[in-house]
Amino acid sequence: MIKKKGLLLVISGPSGAGKGTVCKELLKRNPDFKLSISATTRAPREGEVDGESYFFLTKEKFSEMIGQGGFLEYAQIYSNYYGTPKGPVMKYLEDGSDVILEIEMQGARQVKEMYPEAVLIFVLPPSLEELRNRLTTRGTETEEQVNERLSTSLEEIKQVKDYNYFIFNENNKTTESAMIIEDIITAEKNKASRYEKLIIKKFEEEL
Amino acid sequence: MIKKKGLLLVISGPSGAGKGTVCKELLKRNPDFKLSISATTRAPREGEVDGESYFFLTKEKFSEMIGQGGFLEYAQIYSNYYGTPKGPVMKYLEDGSDVILEIEMQGARQVKEMYPEAVLIFVLPPSLEELRNRLTTRGTETEEQVNERLSTSLEEIKQVKDYNYFIFNENNKTTESAMIIEDIITAEKNKASRYEKLIIKKFEEEL
Repeated sequence: MIKKKGLLLVISGPSGAGKGTVCKELLKRNPDFKLSISATTRAPREGEVDGESYFFLTKEKFSEMIGQGGFLEYAQIYSNYYGTPKGPVMKYLEDGSDVILEIEMQGARQVKEMYPEAVLIFVLPPSLEELRNRLTTRGTETEEQVNERLSTSLEEIKQVKDYNYFIFNENNKTTESAMIIEDIITAEKNKASRYEKLIIKKFEEEL
Repeated sequence: MIKKKGLLLVISGPSGAGKGTVCKELLKRNPDFKLSISATTRAPREGEVDGESYFFLTKEKFSEMIGQGGFLEYAQIYSNYYGTPKGPVMKYLEDGSDVILEIEMQGARQVKEMYPEAVLIFVLPPSLEELRNRLTTRGTETEEQVNERLSTSLEEIKQVKDYNYFIFNENNKTTESAMIIEDIITAEKNKASRYEKLIIKKFEEEL
């Protein structure tokens, strides 16, 4: 009916909510969706392929791209940079492909600023109790550390207001979570504010 | 996870777009949805049942209800009044039921003013050409009248910007249209701005 650009879907949320699992399921169910590949200045590990695992860049190249506004979001973690190159994402969107970005909450905010049409989805654990279980099961942290993480998580959850949508990602219901995201995509592709100009133009040209 | 109120779904659009057919399909697929019953001051016709076809009211009662803000929308058509009583709709929503309101565009605007949380869906014909076919097939109007209707339709279509969503209602694709509305409902029930306070409260109470 009208030519629609792709949607940029940003999946984020507190650690332990399961955003990675949800994204994997979403991509499995929708092979046409494009997953954005991050860039990094850290050295490739064994088996990592440039342009698949990451785009591996020198620090000089990364800085240059920052200066050119070439990232949708980026962050320094210890001595290395990580970021989402803007170019490939914009090309996919122009071609009509939907792009999935699974990133940390700080990055999600940057993307929304750079590209306000992005759709931000916040993946939530079903409860703090369940989040505690998930963090404990990983077994890498002491109880004190887990308690600290939970306090941080609560602060992070309060940022749900900066997102467009939320999903309670329940145990063993990854498929349900992915299906809700699919419905959100359909709804966004039928959102009047996104397409009103194209719609009016289409009918005016038909008269 | 959190207790959600029902959604008020307003289905509107230019005449001939097929909003009635879409609503019927939507209700057939979702027997839990409540269809709002209009009130009118006109006399019941044979077979019409009070509280089913319409709520039949005297002009005095109707005026009194207008004065009390008792309608989500109302209009005078010739010498009679028609309107959507607010009370039953609000009760359904509080109980968690979704309510469908199929109304003319002027009424849709009034509802949005009275109840900004309402979700307004604009049903569009696939093209003006197809709208012409549909209006012609009815056979009740001259070509000149149909041309006038099409100009009016175009003006009405420009009001898509006042709506939250649009749907191109294609021929023989009523089910597809109904399914898009179902996806919109799911998306709206996962909209952060609608539930952020409830979400934050839930997790704060769990800490």
